[in-house]
Amino acid sequence: MPVILNSQNPNFDADFTALLHTKREADQDVDHVVAGIIAQVQSRGDEALIEYTEKFDHLSLTPETLAFSPAEIDAAIATVPNAERSALELAATRIRAYHERQIPNNEWWTGDHGEGLGWRWSAVERAGLYVPGGLASYPSSVLMNAIPAQVAGVENLAICAPTPNGKFNPLVLLAARLSGVETIYRIGGAQAIAAMAFGTETIPKVDTITGPGNAFVAAAKRRVYGHVGIDMIAGPSEILIIADRDNNPDWIALDLLSQAEHDASAQSILITDDADFAHGVIRAVEKRLETLERRDIARQSWRDFGAVIVCQDLEQAATLSDRLAPEHLELCVQDAESYAQKIRHAGAIFIGAYTPEAIGDYIGGPNHVLPTARSARFSSGLSVLDFMKRTTLSRMTPAALAAIGPSAETLAKSESLEAHGLSVRARLDQLNKDTQS
Amino acid sequence: MPVILNSQNPNFDADFTALLHTKREADQDVDHVVAGIIAQVQSRGDEALIEYTEKFDHLSLTPETLAFSPAEIDAAIATVPNAERSALELAATRIRAYHERQIPNNEWWTGDHGEGLGWRWSAVERAGLYVPGGLASYPSSVLMNAIPAQVAGVENLAICAPTPNGKFNPLVLLAARLSGVETIYRIGGAQAIAAMAFGTETIPKVDTITGPGNAFVAAAKRRVYGHVGIDMIAGPSEILIIADRDNNPDWIALDLLSQAEHDASAQSILITDDADFAHGVIRAVEKRLETLERRDIARQSWRDFGAVIVCQDLEQAATLSDRLAPEHLELCVQDAESYAQKIRHAGAIFIGAYTPEAIGDYIGGPNHVLPTARSARFSSGLSVLDFMKRTTLSRMTPAALAAIGPSAETLAKSESLEAHGLSVRARLDQLNKDTQS
Repeated sequence: MPVILNSQNPNFDADFTALLHTKREADQDVDHVVAGIIAQVQSRGDEALIEYTEKFDHLSLTPETLAFSPAEIDAAIATVPNAERSALELAATRIRAYHERQIPNNEWWTGDHGEGLGWRWSAVERAGLYVPGGLASYPSSVLMNAIPAQVAGVENLAICAPTPNGKFNPLVLLAARLSGVETIYRIGGAQAIAAMAFGTETIPKVDTITGPGNAFVAAAKRRVYGHVGIDMIAGPSEILIIADRDNNPDWIALDLLSQAEHDASAQSILITDDADFAHGVIRAVEKRLETLERRDIARQSWRDFGAVIVCQDLEQAATLSDRLAPEHLELCVQDAESYAQKIRHAGAIFIGAYTPEAIGDYIGGPNHVLPTARSARFSSGLSVLDFMKRTTLSRMTPAALAAIGPSAETLAKSESLEAHGLSVRARLDQLNKDTQS
Repeated sequence: MPVILNSQNPNFDADFTALLHTKREADQDVDHVVAGIIAQVQSRGDEALIEYTEKFDHLSLTPETLAFSPAEIDAAIATVPNAERSALELAATRIRAYHERQIPNNEWWTGDHGEGLGWRWSAVERAGLYVPGGLASYPSSVLMNAIPAQVAGVENLAICAPTPNGKFNPLVLLAARLSGVETIYRIGGAQAIAAMAFGTETIPKVDTITGPGNAFVAAAKRRVYGHVGIDMIAGPSEILIIADRDNNPDWIALDLLSQAEHDASAQSILITDDADFAHGVIRAVEKRLETLERRDIARQSWRDFGAVIVCQDLEQAATLSDRLAPEHLELCVQDAESYAQKIRHAGAIFIGAYTPEAIGDYIGGPNHVLPTARSARFSSGLSVLDFMKRTTLSRMTPAALAAIGPSAETLAKSESLEAHGLSVRARLDQLNKDTQS
């Protein structure tokens, strides 16, 4: 049974705060191990990478087989049934259309004294995309990582996707092809992050690494951050659904379970203003759990981290939602579009009962790589901007320097940075001379 | 003497690559110490903070005196001379005007099947700005951090600025007031980062921490990253100047020195296509070093990390510049504005001989918090976006779900995520029923 909270209960605040601070990940002290792996890959390159892949993925590689060959990719893609291929193509088209709107504008304007000011965006040259292996090797994640990079204009895209015991999902290779990725390495874990961050004999160093992964991948991304760009440190996924009584309990139950089935650390929360509806959803979840393929995982997640909150009214629901700052937020309420305006902190909002989160996971258009564990308070989902950077531009005219230079000189002196001041003063003196002559 | 490289030299490539990989920071193993400090502040709050401030800054504080009082701020501000006050006000006005243009647009549009798609930006609620103390306690850094946050719409802004032996710069307090910051704590180091990231009895937890600092501050920011947002992990500052012979060698020398005087790990590089000009600049630097107030620091930086590169032509200069991906790039060449188009990787570009970097440090308008150590390959200077985050929005209509839902279902099945597929299927079945009835 999930936690059931009622906002009328005198302990509600304390219980809700406890829910906010639920730890869903074991404190694995993997950092020490990860530091060792990174050091090995930095110093021994391919050799270390091959050893770790043998050890962790039970797969023997050579520098020549680190990447899938074009023939292997072709062969795998040929096995993909037409229905899957079409679905993936539609998803790619829609994700691309959404992300193309994110391309930022360059700006260049003239200031008060004739000076030019502005900025210019440009793409990184190389990006490395991490795609988890095994259970969670999702072609949709390939599209969600690679398409924003492609739209940004990144020239070189490579994927690292571990293939434990050599097993892989052909749709992952098709998704890579649909999003312009030529190179797919069958490596994973901290060793893959290290290889992309520092380069090996075979794997070129990249500028930016994105994509989700386990605790080892997360620790490795934290360690290489600054040396390369990264998207975020991702934790287990979560959903919050705000639903009123005018919903089908089974639909809401399935939406909760579509989060819970990801993994046992996932979290599904329902907030409703109707206690009867809350119990209806709980019963519907129980019923679906009887037959669901991934019922063992989903049941564990629902039991350990699931929560149902009965609140006073939908105003309160919005306030609680902002405190949770959920990764995914479904709004199944009357006039959901204007209700959405009340929300400030959420990674993605799914508006209305016909927008199950699964649409956003695959095909809606927005990115499914989203801030977890309440980090929507300060961070955003993956976007084209993660693969671009901005260069600021300024051009002073002599008149502009004459107008604002003296203030810069004053501030430089007050900060005891004499050369800063002199670099302005030397030019101002010349301008004064020019004026006098 | 700085390194002098000539692109005609057969060893040039190797020498340039060595320059790229120059280490300017000692590998201080501060991470272990920082982990301890963070743990202490997390568990003991104010008490630990006060102990560390006593130990590192030789300053005795109480919970009541952790922050400057309004009266202390008023008294300090009253001592600021008019010239400095006016200069700071002009800087604040110009920085604000530049950053107001960075406010991103919200978007909402209708897709192919009547579905609504878009995103919305919002500000973080609380930001903590770190301002280094002692030598590098710069009021300009306060403006550059606080104004973007204020423009973004952050409601609560606090500054941590250590005051070793109780000493502080009144202009820092004035800059804080000019940029809407009410609260200034006199704490610094890893302990200040920990206090802002996790909160103490006195200091509220923030969502995002920005601002430069020493190795301890950098290590602490890396550790709290993900729990809060951070701007970047900053290293020592650098400048690259591309200048042709038609420049005053003394101006260029002063620009190089305005970087070198920051600290001994700063790096100043000149690229020119004229060997005589190169030597003219070197002589001008030597001459200025005779009298410069901060000549000990500047001389050390110039000797250890300075470089002068004589290249074949300005095309090659642009190529080398992109390999260096400098934090600051001055272009003192003919038709500098169109030359700037050749550059892809730089934090900030200063166009033309009348735009010394010092203008950008103080008053030009663009931010002076910029990516160091070649991280301009993948990251940007501080901006309004660092204090905002994006929520993606989608709203399916029944018609849109009918059109794209089946593909989502197909992909969910192929990823063995049954509940994902069922959450779509349940709705599609209802739509089919509705159509038939």
